[in-house]
Amino acid sequence: MPDPIITLTTDFGLDSPYVAAMKGVIISFNARARLIDLSHQIPPQDLRHAAFFLRHSVPWFPSTVLHVVVVDPGVGSERALLYVETGGHRLLVPDNGCWTLLADRVSTPPHVRRLAEPKFWQRSISPTFHGRDILAPVAGWLSRGVRPEELGPIVTEWVRLAPPAPACSDARGLVGGEVAFIDHFGNIITSIPGEAVFGGSGTLSLHVQGTADREAREFQAQRVRTYADAEPGTLVGLVSSVGLLEFAVVQGNGARRLGLSMGDRVTVRQAHES
Amino acid sequence: MPDPIITLTTDFGLDSPYVAAMKGVIISFNARARLIDLSHQIPPQDLRHAAFFLRHSVPWFPSTVLHVVVVDPGVGSERALLYVETGGHRLLVPDNGCWTLLADRVSTPPHVRRLAEPKFWQRSISPTFHGRDILAPVAGWLSRGVRPEELGPIVTEWVRLAPPAPACSDARGLVGGEVAFIDHFGNIITSIPGEAVFGGSGTLSLHVQGTADREAREFQAQRVRTYADAEPGTLVGLVSSVGLLEFAVVQGNGARRLGLSMGDRVTVRQAHES
Amino acid sequence: MPDPIITLTTDFGLDSPYVAAMKGVIISFNARARLIDLSHQIPPQDLRHAAFFLRHSVPWFPSTVLHVVVVDPGVGSERALLYVETGGHRLLVPDNGCWTLLADRVSTPPHVRRLAEPKFWQRSISPTFHGRDILAPVAGWLSRGVRPEELGPIVTEWVRLAPPAPACSDARGLVGGEVAFIDHFGNIITSIPGEAVFGGSGTLSLHVQGTADREAREFQAQRVRTYADAEPGTLVGLVSSVGLLEFAVVQGNGARRLGLSMGDRVTVRQAHES
Repeated sequence: MPDPIITLTTDFGLDSPYVAAMKGVIISFNARARLIDLSHQIPPQDLRHAAFFLRHSVPWFPSTVLHVVVVDPGVGSERALLYVETGGHRLLVPDNGCWTLLADRVSTPPHVRRLAEPKFWQRSISPTFHGRDILAPVAGWLSRGVRPEELGPIVTEWVRLAPPAPACSDARGLVGGEVAFIDHFGNIITSIPGEAVFGGSGTLSLHVQGTADREAREFQAQRVRTYADAEPGTLVGLVSSVGLLEFAVVQGNGARRLGLSMGDRVTVRQAHES
Repeated sequence: MPDPIITLTTDFGLDSPYVAAMKGVIISFNARARLIDLSHQIPPQDLRHAAFFLRHSVPWFPSTVLHVVVVDPGVGSERALLYVETGGHRLLVPDNGCWTLLADRVSTPPHVRRLAEPKFWQRSISPTFHGRDILAPVAGWLSRGVRPEELGPIVTEWVRLAPPAPACSDARGLVGGEVAFIDHFGNIITSIPGEAVFGGSGTLSLHVQGTADREAREFQAQRVRTYADAEPGTLVGLVSSVGLLEFAVVQGNGARRLGLSMGDRVTVRQAHES
Repeated sequence: MPDPIITLTTDFGLDSPYVAAMKGVIISFNARARLIDLSHQIPPQDLRHAAFFLRHSVPWFPSTVLHVVVVDPGVGSERALLYVETGGHRLLVPDNGCWTLLADRVSTPPHVRRLAEPKFWQRSISPTFHGRDILAPVAGWLSRGVRPEELGPIVTEWVRLAPPAPACSDARGLVGGEVAFIDHFGNIITSIPGEAVFGGSGTLSLHVQGTADREAREFQAQRVRTYADAEPGTLVGLVSSVGLLEFAVVQGNGARRLGLSMGDRVTVRQAHES
């Protein structure tokens, strides 16, 4: 049997000793555990970023893997820590909704337990670092064969994160949504399913709703299948690798060029070919 | 028996090929070695940062693990390379004090050897990359069962890094120390033990000593148990997860807000409840 | 037999879910595969950076390791994906030249196959993420014993990346080349072999060719064996750990101080001792 695999996703960065401390704790509970870093670059306390990240990474893993997630603005408060099984994946997470986009994609309800059995924790618990003192030891125990039912009682209520605003379309062919994610390249991934606007051809108009600070703006994007279909510097619209409508500047940073951030409201219109 | 584990801590960053080269060398000496990255984001040549990092991560690992540390401003000079055992932990380090805070915490003296046996090194040694050409091969050999006494002679002198200024208190209830670390979130970790100021309650006054460039300043912090005990944006004082007095801005960056850096001298006073 | 090792090198950064998704796919195809991160901090789409990175990291690994590289500005276009064996190393790469500096260093020609057998890929292929949908599954299959000849036909043509301008010298002792790499510390690694200017002693003159935007400039560097041979802040010239002539500011950032970037043309002259 292969060694058990535990992944880590945090907003700790790598200049501080926190990730290393968690790795030490897991290894001290199970020296056979194999650690895989998913990311330690989730922006601090950014639950929506974490939720998108997990939604588009965890489903690619086999169900034997255990995922430990520490993006935890409520650490030390009354918020619970959870063991979750959803869609065949297992996670240890704070009860702040960072994982619920994963559950939204499957029809069967998640199996959720509240961590309540201190015998699987460190003896002394820092009120600011439950990742090290509770989640890491529990991950170690689980990887050694402790059964989930030993960890604590089943719960049926938990914090849910609202998914990015779903696409809505009107009779004129306008489709609305929001910026669901900005990736490392500055590509702008919307909440609009790719197929919603990719029946046709021609250019796409991207309308960015105005705010108190900023006027509304409109951009024209060339509709393409992949980045290499247009010249460097071109604003393009395409179906992203996660299935959503994406806007990108070829070999450039689209979010910076367009001044967009996660959560910005957008409307897309397909130009009819003339 | 589980495969041997070797951790890596460097200031190399990950855009350069240096960490990858070290991993290749270790694996080429022992294909069973399991590598765990602790950090490659130690600020360049910052020994005090490295020392704090190791002090608060290495003790969480089991004693079977070998830690390789390459923060090495003196590479290629006469400074020695060391094999260290302290508090049940084993390290390969340059002799620059980066590890000595680990030894300060245990009462038994460290067992230290100077790496002096070139048969465990690469044949050709770059004067600017002993991590790749000496430490990595030695780590590989140790993980294959070479005994420490084969590596070189015991030494009893080594460079010691002064620990962050210890807390000192006076009759008026003032406690002085310094900023020992700024973490990834901008939380300010002082050298003052948490218990020194946490007998009481009420607010904490944080006095930052003036310098040639900057006037002295004073801040009021709300004393809390964890971040979630105060509103976002509040300056709070609490016991950090490493046991030291910490100042933080809830869901914000305290070091940036207060303009503090590692090494800044601070004094803390507890307000008496009225 | 040790578990198979697969390394990952990408320009994906770690704030996006792309690296994590690739890891999940590899593990889902082979739960025994051991993953080693080389870098996910290659600057976006920077093939020359990737080429230097691979040239100076991959050769340190044993030949049993498989290297997966995803720096892929042409993703989804007609560019091929390749299985490469060169100098005893195995890679899965886009056909964009990112690997050809590795082949330049060995005399035997590389063995190259075009990935053409979709039965080793995901069923559905995103035109913007072949790393996840083609390279990761193929890596998983290879690590489980699939033979390279099953992946696709041998090819004899591929994109070659021009190596950094080689050193050229004239009768007056001038040696010309270019900035081949700027490392994490800001050290400036030229394309000039270290031995070309290190027969003598004394200072080195570094002449930076002017461009449309910038006048030509000249710097004097102290010739040293290692950084610690000069005072902090000194500009030094030395043989880098990769064998090339390097300019560095001791405990500082040379590239920033001198305003140099990859590709800048430079000429070096040895001062004769008087």
